[in-house]
Amino acid sequence: MADRSEIDALIDLMAKLPGLGPRSARRAVLHLIRKRGLLLQPLADSMAEVARTARECLNCGNVGTSDICAICADDRRATGLLCVVEDVADLWAMERSGVFKGRYHVLGGTLSALDAVGPEDLRIPKLLDRVAGEEITEVILALNATIDGQTTAHYIVDQLEGRVEITSLAQGVPIGGELDYLDDGTITAALNARKRM
Amino acid sequence: MADRSEIDALIDLMAKLPGLGPRSARRAVLHLIRKRGLLLQPLADSMAEVARTARECLNCGNVGTSDICAICADDRRATGLLCVVEDVADLWAMERSGVFKGRYHVLGGTLSALDAVGPEDLRIPKLLDRVAGEEITEVILALNATIDGQTTAHYIVDQLEGRVEITSLAQGVPIGGELDYLDDGTITAALNARKRM
Ligand SMILES: [Zn+2]
Ligand SMILES: [Zn+2]
Repeated sequence: MADRSEIDALIDLMAKLPGLGPRSARRAVLHLIRKRGLLLQPLADSMAEVARTARECLNCGNVGTSDICAICADDRRATGLLCVVEDVADLWAMERSGVFKGRYHVLGGTLSALDAVGPEDLRIPKLLDRVAGEEITEVILALNATIDGQTTAHYIVDQLEGRVEITSLAQGVPIGGELDYLDDGTITAALNARKRM
Repeated sequence: MADRSEIDALIDLMAKLPGLGPRSARRAVLHLIRKRGLLLQPLADSMAEVARTARECLNCGNVGTSDICAICADDRRATGLLCVVEDVADLWAMERSGVFKGRYHVLGGTLSALDAVGPEDLRIPKLLDRVAGEEITEVILALNATIDGQTTAHYIVDQLEGRVEITSLAQGVPIGGELDYLDDGTITAALNARKRM
């Protein structure tokens, strides 16, 4: 089926998305072809636009469409509160809960001896710079309750101890749980019951 | 987060894909932003290309990039054998098994009293035309083993009885099963053991 080459190429690309295997990629592409005016063309345009404009915030690592993201640039947000998360999906989960009015720092992962991920591979040096340079009074560690997440939390506490108040999300985060799976209420409860480390 | 509007728009569009909810759409978009050079831009280009070129075959209903699809246009394929499937995903599943060397007719669904889908809503009139006009010796019904699939099969048998040999996939298709979920070997076995109706 020579004339399916463009369609096959699209299926192969779609199958590279997390959560989509070859079968669901085929289903998705057939759905897109059926709705090529209503969905496929708008999606192509939207992807091209995001590919052109998306960038990581130079300050916190959030994604947005400018060098400094809207949260960092928003002077209504508390400058003294800094919430440290592993990745942008966790930042989005915190934002959906709507309870946190400070700013963020996205590490971009966790320390991992197994995967040879050290502090320099994450935004940990930048975090230490921010705590030294900005008027931060409290660092809230909102890392996943996984072994690597907690190892990373301990490393950050070691680095920052005595320089700033450090708290962490507590009540409501299940052992082994990941922030991005939690409902907004659980995140709210965990933030309100944060404990000093 | 005003500067996330383009990203939010992309998430909303991605969440319209079958099998992707809001959460997996967010994950997929973050993945795409991380790989914006390697994956997001190629995907945007591929989607635009498919949106521009994809069309349904005027003869059989398969999708391709020309008015008559590559299978219908391939004169090495047996003209006497016509395999009737519900949708293009089923045609693709048959093709992956590699065992069928005839041509196809894609109904575009099944008859359904509940959803008020009648013969005219499917490519059934076109099927009757093809049997009357092409040199077809055998119609192989490869419909799903669901109630609607079998209702549709019986309707087609009623229409074509006495005009052409009609067979259906038999051994190997589980009750309630859908073709697109079956492995290639099962499809091959079912085709080889097809029975006269
Ligand atoms: Zn930022
Ligand atoms: Zn065709």
